[in-house]
Amino acid sequence: MTEAPTTKHRVVVVGAGFGGLFATKTLRRVPVSVTLINGTTYHLFEPLLYQVATGILSEGEVAPPVREILRHHDNLDIQLGWVTDVDVAQKTVLVNAPDGRERRVPYDSLIVAAGARNSYFGNDGFAEHAPSLKNIDDALELRSRIFHAFEMAELEEDSEARQRWLTFVLIGAGPTGVEMAGQIAELAHRALKGQYRHADLTQTRIILVDAADRVLPAFDPPMSHAALKRLSTMGVDVRLNTRVVDVDADGVKVDSAGGGERIEARTKIWAAGVAAPTLGHRIAEAAGAETDRAGRIRVNPDLTIPGHPEIFVVGDMAALDLPGVAQVAMQGGRYAARVIKGRLAGRPPTKPFRYFDKGNMATISRFSAVANVGKLHFSGVLGWLMWLGVHLFYLIGFKNKVTTLMHWVVTFLGRGRPQRIATTQQINARNALSRTPPVPS
Amino acid sequence: MTEAPTTKHRVVVVGAGFGGLFATKTLRRVPVSVTLINGTTYHLFEPLLYQVATGILSEGEVAPPVREILRHHDNLDIQLGWVTDVDVAQKTVLVNAPDGRERRVPYDSLIVAAGARNSYFGNDGFAEHAPSLKNIDDALELRSRIFHAFEMAELEEDSEARQRWLTFVLIGAGPTGVEMAGQIAELAHRALKGQYRHADLTQTRIILVDAADRVLPAFDPPMSHAALKRLSTMGVDVRLNTRVVDVDADGVKVDSAGGGERIEARTKIWAAGVAAPTLGHRIAEAAGAETDRAGRIRVNPDLTIPGHPEIFVVGDMAALDLPGVAQVAMQGGRYAARVIKGRLAGRPPTKPFRYFDKGNMATISRFSAVANVGKLHFSGVLGWLMWLGVHLFYLIGFKNKVTTLMHWVVTFLGRGRPQRIATTQQINARNALSRTPPVPS
Repeated sequence: MTEAPTTKHRVVVVGAGFGGLFATKTLRRVPVSVTLINGTTYHLFEPLLYQVATGILSEGEVAPPVREILRHHDNLDIQLGWVTDVDVAQKTVLVNAPDGRERRVPYDSLIVAAGARNSYFGNDGFAEHAPSLKNIDDALELRSRIFHAFEMAELEEDSEARQRWLTFVLIGAGPTGVEMAGQIAELAHRALKGQYRHADLTQTRIILVDAADRVLPAFDPPMSHAALKRLSTMGVDVRLNTRVVDVDADGVKVDSAGGGERIEARTKIWAAGVAAPTLGHRIAEAAGAETDRAGRIRVNPDLTIPGHPEIFVVGDMAALDLPGVAQVAMQGGRYAARVIKGRLAGRPPTKPFRYFDKGNMATISRFSAVANVGKLHFSGVLGWLMWLGVHLFYLIGFKNKVTTLMHWVVTFLGRGRPQRIATTQQINARNALSRTPPVPS
Repeated sequence: MTEAPTTKHRVVVVGAGFGGLFATKTLRRVPVSVTLINGTTYHLFEPLLYQVATGILSEGEVAPPVREILRHHDNLDIQLGWVTDVDVAQKTVLVNAPDGRERRVPYDSLIVAAGARNSYFGNDGFAEHAPSLKNIDDALELRSRIFHAFEMAELEEDSEARQRWLTFVLIGAGPTGVEMAGQIAELAHRALKGQYRHADLTQTRIILVDAADRVLPAFDPPMSHAALKRLSTMGVDVRLNTRVVDVDADGVKVDSAGGGERIEARTKIWAAGVAAPTLGHRIAEAAGAETDRAGRIRVNPDLTIPGHPEIFVVGDMAALDLPGVAQVAMQGGRYAARVIKGRLAGRPPTKPFRYFDKGNMATISRFSAVANVGKLHFSGVLGWLMWLGVHLFYLIGFKNKVTTLMHWVVTFLGRGRPQRIATTQQINARNALSRTPPVPS
């Protein structure tokens, strides 16, 4: 289909995460033509991904289709594909379609918001044994591994092997590690209680390891303290000042001031470092920009790349001294869109980007969370009610809110974990790694 | 863990579908020890599988964990694994665990209820291009293909190639084929309406092919007529007396009295034949029983195998002249359990198994279904309300009922399709077949 050539200013937005989505939303009534390019068909509500991995929510509830969210945008073209490179001279991005074909998309302004991926700090071989939790595939893989571990413990007759299936190691005590540790504890001690006959789920060991000296290091120290206390009450074994030096199919090796130790565990979850995606390096190279140690691009105070006022970098890909949370990306995306709008209207340059910190929160278990809001601290039930309110508020506009609320009622008031499916495709992909014959379908 | 030897009568139930589940439920208060062996951790509510494939329900909603459903059964041991063989002399079944290990489980009575799988009538090569819809993996694969097809149509610039992405062929006009055709029509003409900019979804072609001379041949002819009329109104192109002779990546070849024709279509769905799983042949061989053309085992009027009163075959695996519906399996499972109970109580043999036909129903679109109940016929809105009532009734006992109802409200009153995820694992597995490079995760 050919279209009439447009004389409108063309904005290309890379990524439909919080940054890209809010940039696009802010441009809705601006006389530009927007192309939003994303590698998947959905926006990922990443703060709730741990609930998919632990059977509370379905994947559709945290990953609404981008076309559905933005269906009323008349100036928008949504394209499925991965941006792999940028030509700053020709002002085009190179896009890989899922069928392997490449195409170039021209831009007048470019907003890069491709997020972050997990970093194994050079030990990429760990990934197979300790998946991270950054996307839907990760969450479904972890869901499959966690629920499968309890089933295998039930089948296993050797007590050491059974304990290995009942041991879960979480590497990294940021919000993801803490939330996953809390949820696995709830699974073992509450949701799955009484459903197994041979495996004794009270023997479940959940070990949370971090090289830092406190959990949730991005929070104020009293919150770290409250979280640690709650985790201990739940039976989570928290090992601080402890570094993971090796990961294999049957366990991890850790090192601390007290010496080295091996922990036997079938299920390991990587919740440690993040790094910019490869695209960050390609763009930095193409635009002659600098990157920091994590591969994030150094930007001007207005989020543009030095020498390229037409290229904005927002969210986790920008080297700002800010936490990798949704709010930073949302505010960055909105800011970039406003700068473009202002320029087109001939207004003088806007003020530099300033992040307004609305606070930070992490759930530990049902009815228990910690939250920092400015100088205020909330923990326990109060923190949890804040978490609930904020998340219900941000789910507005997503049709899944009502069913999400229902699933929370089932999980928090009842004991249900409605989403526990492991697919045969997942099991066979893992069996292929260990040369076990495929299971029939 | 070793257990005290039991002197109780040991019942092994193979399969946690409708047959196995109802046999186990019926044995709850009977002084026997029950071992339920299933290849997955969930019971599959197969009549709603098409709603997973078309984005209405999440997989967890149609596949509740067996341990959750049967958590109050004290005489029950649930084991994950595939039964691959039976030793009728030693009275043991051979079980394959997901880690490839084998074990033998002894029985005094055996209830075999492993269901059916799809049959490609000897053309197993069709499976890759035209997946069937018998399990969760199938439903998720079809969901991924269907929603992906609309995205690829949006990206495609060549009009023939685009039309190929917008053409869906359903092979088999039984309930699955009819329900899928209706749902794809609703997707194209209602749920996804207005969400694409380049692809014109009004050009979507949905072709339903069957060698029989009417749709829904298991229903009374007036119902077939009503269904056909409704499908035509929705724009579904129904080709009766037409046989599919070849399937490849880009289309199908069909043959009818009018001659042969090739239909170009990227998405094909196999909803034609069913056959007994391989286990049926193994058991028939071991027990010296006969099988019919579809591989189903010929049984006595009390559902036992001739010469083996301790082995019952229920549901789709038994060669009875009955439809392959949930009710047959449920009633068969309950019957077998009652025979066992009666024998243990020393009661004289019960009457032969008699199927009580509660009726047959299939939805065509929202607010439209056909239903046979005895001699009564319902179609249109009335049929749909019956469908709704019956399905809500049978979902009782599953915690997901409320969220399922909410999803139906969203889908039928609104236009939402909350579950549209294609995983990277699925896309890459397909790309591997066509040698396309993997997409990044």
